[in-house]
Amino acid sequence: MRKLLIAGSLLLASPLVWSQSKSLSGFNDADTKQELQLESTFDGYLSVPNIDSGIRIMSSHPHHVGSPGDKAVADYILQKFKSWGYDAQIETFYVLFPTPKERLLEMTGPITFKAGLAEPALKEDGTSDQTREQLPTYNCFSADGDVTGDLVFVNYGVPEDYDRLARMGVSVKGKIVIAKYGRSWRGIKPKVAQEHGAIGCLIYSDPKDDGYYEGDVYPKGAFKNEYGVQRGSVLDMPIYPGDPLTPGVGATKDAKRLDRKDALTLLKIPVLPISYHDAEPLLRALDGPVAPEEWRGALPITYHVGPGKAKVHLKLAFNWDIKPINDVIAKMPGSQWPDEWVIRGNHHDGWVNGASDPISGQSAMMEEARAVAELHKTGWSPKRTIVYCAWDGEEPGLLGSTEWVETHAGELQQKAVVYINSDGNDRGFFEAGGSHALEPFMNEVARDVIDPETHISIADRKHARELVNAAEGGRLKKDLLQKKGFTLEALGSGSDFSPFLQHLGIPSFNIGFGGEAAGGDYHSIYDSYDNYRRFKDPSFQYGVTLAMAAGRTTLRMADVPLLPFDFRALYKTINGYATELMTELDQMRESTTLINQILKDRDYGYATDTARHLLPPVAKDDVPYLSFSSLQNALGDLEKATNHLADTLAKAHLTGSGAQAVNEALYRAEQQLLSDNGLPRRPWYRHSIYAPGFYTGYGVKTLPGIREAIEQRNWTEAQQQIELDAAVLKKFAAYLASINVGSSGLAKK
Amino acid sequence: MRKLLIAGSLLLASPLVWSQSKSLSGFNDADTKQELQLESTFDGYLSVPNIDSGIRIMSSHPHHVGSPGDKAVADYILQKFKSWGYDAQIETFYVLFPTPKERLLEMTGPITFKAGLAEPALKEDGTSDQTREQLPTYNCFSADGDVTGDLVFVNYGVPEDYDRLARMGVSVKGKIVIAKYGRSWRGIKPKVAQEHGAIGCLIYSDPKDDGYYEGDVYPKGAFKNEYGVQRGSVLDMPIYPGDPLTPGVGATKDAKRLDRKDALTLLKIPVLPISYHDAEPLLRALDGPVAPEEWRGALPITYHVGPGKAKVHLKLAFNWDIKPINDVIAKMPGSQWPDEWVIRGNHHDGWVNGASDPISGQSAMMEEARAVAELHKTGWSPKRTIVYCAWDGEEPGLLGSTEWVETHAGELQQKAVVYINSDGNDRGFFEAGGSHALEPFMNEVARDVIDPETHISIADRKHARELVNAAEGGRLKKDLLQKKGFTLEALGSGSDFSPFLQHLGIPSFNIGFGGEAAGGDYHSIYDSYDNYRRFKDPSFQYGVTLAMAAGRTTLRMADVPLLPFDFRALYKTINGYATELMTELDQMRESTTLINQILKDRDYGYATDTARHLLPPVAKDDVPYLSFSSLQNALGDLEKATNHLADTLAKAHLTGSGAQAVNEALYRAEQQLLSDNGLPRRPWYRHSIYAPGFYTGYGVKTLPGIREAIEQRNWTEAQQQIELDAAVLKKFAAYLASINVGSSGLAKK
Repeated sequence: MRKLLIAGSLLLASPLVWSQSKSLSGFNDADTKQELQLESTFDGYLSVPNIDSGIRIMSSHPHHVGSPGDKAVADYILQKFKSWGYDAQIETFYVLFPTPKERLLEMTGPITFKAGLAEPALKEDGTSDQTREQLPTYNCFSADGDVTGDLVFVNYGVPEDYDRLARMGVSVKGKIVIAKYGRSWRGIKPKVAQEHGAIGCLIYSDPKDDGYYEGDVYPKGAFKNEYGVQRGSVLDMPIYPGDPLTPGVGATKDAKRLDRKDALTLLKIPVLPISYHDAEPLLRALDGPVAPEEWRGALPITYHVGPGKAKVHLKLAFNWDIKPINDVIAKMPGSQWPDEWVIRGNHHDGWVNGASDPISGQSAMMEEARAVAELHKTGWSPKRTIVYCAWDGEEPGLLGSTEWVETHAGELQQKAVVYINSDGNDRGFFEAGGSHALEPFMNEVARDVIDPETHISIADRKHARELVNAAEGGRLKKDLLQKKGFTLEALGSGSDFSPFLQHLGIPSFNIGFGGEAAGGDYHSIYDSYDNYRRFKDPSFQYGVTLAMAAGRTTLRMADVPLLPFDFRALYKTINGYATELMTELDQMRESTTLINQILKDRDYGYATDTARHLLPPVAKDDVPYLSFSSLQNALGDLEKATNHLADTLAKAHLTGSGAQAVNEALYRAEQQLLSDNGLPRRPWYRHSIYAPGFYTGYGVKTLPGIREAIEQRNWTEAQQQIELDAAVLKKFAAYLASINVGSSGLAKK
Repeated sequence: MRKLLIAGSLLLASPLVWSQSKSLSGFNDADTKQELQLESTFDGYLSVPNIDSGIRIMSSHPHHVGSPGDKAVADYILQKFKSWGYDAQIETFYVLFPTPKERLLEMTGPITFKAGLAEPALKEDGTSDQTREQLPTYNCFSADGDVTGDLVFVNYGVPEDYDRLARMGVSVKGKIVIAKYGRSWRGIKPKVAQEHGAIGCLIYSDPKDDGYYEGDVYPKGAFKNEYGVQRGSVLDMPIYPGDPLTPGVGATKDAKRLDRKDALTLLKIPVLPISYHDAEPLLRALDGPVAPEEWRGALPITYHVGPGKAKVHLKLAFNWDIKPINDVIAKMPGSQWPDEWVIRGNHHDGWVNGASDPISGQSAMMEEARAVAELHKTGWSPKRTIVYCAWDGEEPGLLGSTEWVETHAGELQQKAVVYINSDGNDRGFFEAGGSHALEPFMNEVARDVIDPETHISIADRKHARELVNAAEGGRLKKDLLQKKGFTLEALGSGSDFSPFLQHLGIPSFNIGFGGEAAGGDYHSIYDSYDNYRRFKDPSFQYGVTLAMAAGRTTLRMADVPLLPFDFRALYKTINGYATELMTELDQMRESTTLINQILKDRDYGYATDTARHLLPPVAKDDVPYLSFSSLQNALGDLEKATNHLADTLAKAHLTGSGAQAVNEALYRAEQQLLSDNGLPRRPWYRHSIYAPGFYTGYGVKTLPGIREAIEQRNWTEAQQQIELDAAVLKKFAAYLASINVGSSGLAKK
């Protein structure tokens, strides 16, 4: 009844009725009308059955890097793009891709136990029995190793967990650690374990984070059953992504390769992911202090930190092969500005069948591309060249996108207007991250796409969720209620936008839907078509909606006369980050002083249960005052430059080559935010504003040079990074100020 | 090594060295010196082996109300007090005390299961096999009942949980509910279930709150094993405590008794406590929505709310007997003011062996009383009469204390200077609640007692803990570091102070130690001597420390020439509560407006996963502005009166009958805070400042009349209660202003 009412009221608010009053940045009135008409036609071409069959077909067999399934999917995509009239081809790279030769995990005493390390086939899941085609459960880029030692439970295995272990008097030196999946990207866990002297690492999915605690388990419900295992890469991508043997250059057949031992992104210790079924006997055997409350999961045991009498033996050996990866690149040339490229991508390789990750996104992208091709058949051509990319090798380490970007870096920095990424997609809310100069633009896109469940715009639904989340958390405030538009998330890593944005400075987006389809299938054999259609997006409507959102993003960026970069939004964002950092530094200073004081007063000793032997934390050096003045001055310049540019663009009436020159200056502006030497100790990452965290992995660090130096309490480096970022922002402001818009008349708005 | 250092530095700061410079409120310099000397002698009498043997002897058999063990303990205590020279006697009351005749809990389908309802004897626990003397696991004052129905999981069973159930579309009408122990006092759970139409109630101990999640289980560790059950009363004590059949009057042999059906504090539905072993199959059988995250416990299941196919059958029948309870009352007459009584109490009845609850406190009190008697033998006598009370029947509902207080109400309101309560006691930190006019006094006591583990004062250790807790929670601020003294907790209910404070307005304290000895023995057969000496206070030092703290409180209050009431502290506390209420009302108004707005905008529908069917909350009526002016004006009067009184007391040099009159005016002042008609719907509770919450049980509500009306959104009553409390405070201020201190000279300070 309620649904009918909503649907009824919706007829009045459909996009066609709205279109008269809508404005699109960078389009004049006539162009706007035409563009909205085009999008409406585009929407009409999108087909639910195509999304469905695309997912079914491409996830019908395991298709990890180097497998027959992988090649078959690439060929399928190629053939499809060709059939739709794209200029499509496969570009092949040759990358290091280890696969397991031997996997052994056992407890040798006091109880003996041998881990099963296998996900069983289920009759409710039609592809789960393709055992011979499946990669076994493993962490890709683990080291070979044969180690035996005591076991220590390290919570999520992030640096602060080791601080806590030290307070409990527990060292992992010479021991094997067991960490929970979650909190950080998985690759951080063995890296930090290795830094602390561990000789091996197990990562398990605790049922609290990923299992029965969350809901009914597969196949009754969507959540991880006791045997489910999350595969995944542990390449040290925060150093650089892509083939570990060819940093910075394309992994072509004849590329010069590092020796494996010299590759900085390869671990030295063995690491293995296990199920909670396999983890339980190991954790149960631990002794030592009871784990702090925040560490405990949902297994029916008392979580101890260890060590105990139990000895664990972990033996792993891998085939360290070079495998081909096949990127499918499909172009539709621009009619007016063929050398300006709007690039749209989604990977196609999966860890196993990958129905959700990544095929749901791939199928939506292909349906979008098919509809664009249909538009083309009606006589329309994009003004700029559209490039569809189906990446291979994303799972092991963004291999396909990174190698392609590194191979074509020069051309891309010249031609790439924007990179629009998606990945796995399911029911729920619009999620969007990206370059903040395009935040107003993405708000217009989300304003114009209707959510299939609620029939309001995906922007309004996102706002509703923000309001209700705040209300449920007791944090609802008036300013949130009145907030206009949404904030674009800053991008860290975890999908193929990373090389475009962080290595080349190409404006990027990462978009998709989610939040209503949590489950435990991620990187397991149960990420299947059968699972997807029951739990992820049963109507496949969110595939269509992703095609609508990403399609609009692509079409508008391809057709817009004046590129809709608004650097005022970027300025505001960076200024926000800078303010946040200054506040955090002040808070760090205050809390350091106070905690050092209570340490000096021995309050920790007095407050601690004398039977628990918890040591006080280590006193930290005082936090100095850093000078932010150069950064603040640079931000002042930037504010002025962005306001001036916005004003002149609003007044300008750009046509012909003048427009082209201005557009080129606009889309290449973000490259000015690259620093020459990149981030400390990881020069591949050159963007001064966005980077994945050195100790978070996927999680973003904004103003990363400064922020991470502060977090690591490296004050000298923090001050250096402030100066470096100030110089970059000053250069960026000067660049924007120098854009010659001209003044050939007032725009008709 | 570190311990030695601390002990070394301590020698310099021992009480004897300090005593010269210490001041004691209400004592002049000479008296102070003498008093500190007395306390030092007193400390010397206290004996660890006595505490140990007292616990061992009194917990050697089950000793619940009406049992042979109960009588034996009362007789033991009586004999001891007599042997020490006290004027001691047993005062007997006759109270309703139901015990189980039949207990049956079973699931009849789809799986059949019969709950064991028994705690097994353990070889590691020497008294756990006294099965024939033990009360079975039950909730005292459950109704008789034989009910069958669907089961619904209601989280902790507090009102907000039912709001959430309503949003999930689940009703408990005609059903049996299962609630977790915790969050509220247990009696609230069946009461709220009954209000919502449930026909029965199970309460279980989830291992997350009380079991393996917390630590190793008994007997390996201290925490609740799978069979442990928390017994306990479900009498509706927030209406009135004490014998349900004799509200307001002593339950003497011939007292007029209500008919059981007319007793407001008796439930109408059956309720039974069960172990997590017995709860697991029931919870596992539930269907319906997955429980919200905050509801989930640590059993290895997906927590569903229910109902499901499972039918539950609960049959309970009780012997509704009238049983005798035996309070031991022991007096040492005051030499100077025999009609001023300093009353010190701790209950002696346990649910089973009760080594921790209450015998650890009882044994400490008796050792204190013995040491006081030793002082007496040296020729010292207290100036005021000291009354030691060992209460019976606390567990079923503060029966012994309440009936005694009701019987002697008139005399107590005339003579009682203060009531000092303790209960179970174990290792850790000093915990103190009470009347805030005595907050500065209790700070002086805690300043002068040394913690046996850290060898600093129990006040300093309490402060250290507050600082470290704040630091660990990221909340450490400068003002906390600089804070002088601790805040006395406001008293709700849960032990025998309640009738003194809340029914008669007698200044009260509740003190003890704890926080380092959590465990799962509470109200189970495992609350034993064997358990206590392993996990609660192995050295029995905290029994001695309680005797030192409570002994000082008793001795100082008994000997002090000018009673150390400082009503400025009370004013500040009440003013704080009033400010807090005004702020909360404003926040309620703002959040109501905002939430009603997003309800009107249908954001809840838009933000909710359409597959989960979670209804929006019900819109609430807008929060009006209430007038607090009368309360604020009364607080203004009170501030003036308390400052004036403090000034004149500081200047006065009181002796003889002048002192007696002023002292009497001071200790009877708190009675002015009683309201004539008591709290709405529960007239037994007459204190305007402190009461147990109607829906929290033990948890305190300050300014309860106003606060609970606001929480219940009863705006008319809230305004009435503001006026009533304003009148009470105005009367109180006038009373304080009228105390005639005289001005016979300046005090030598």
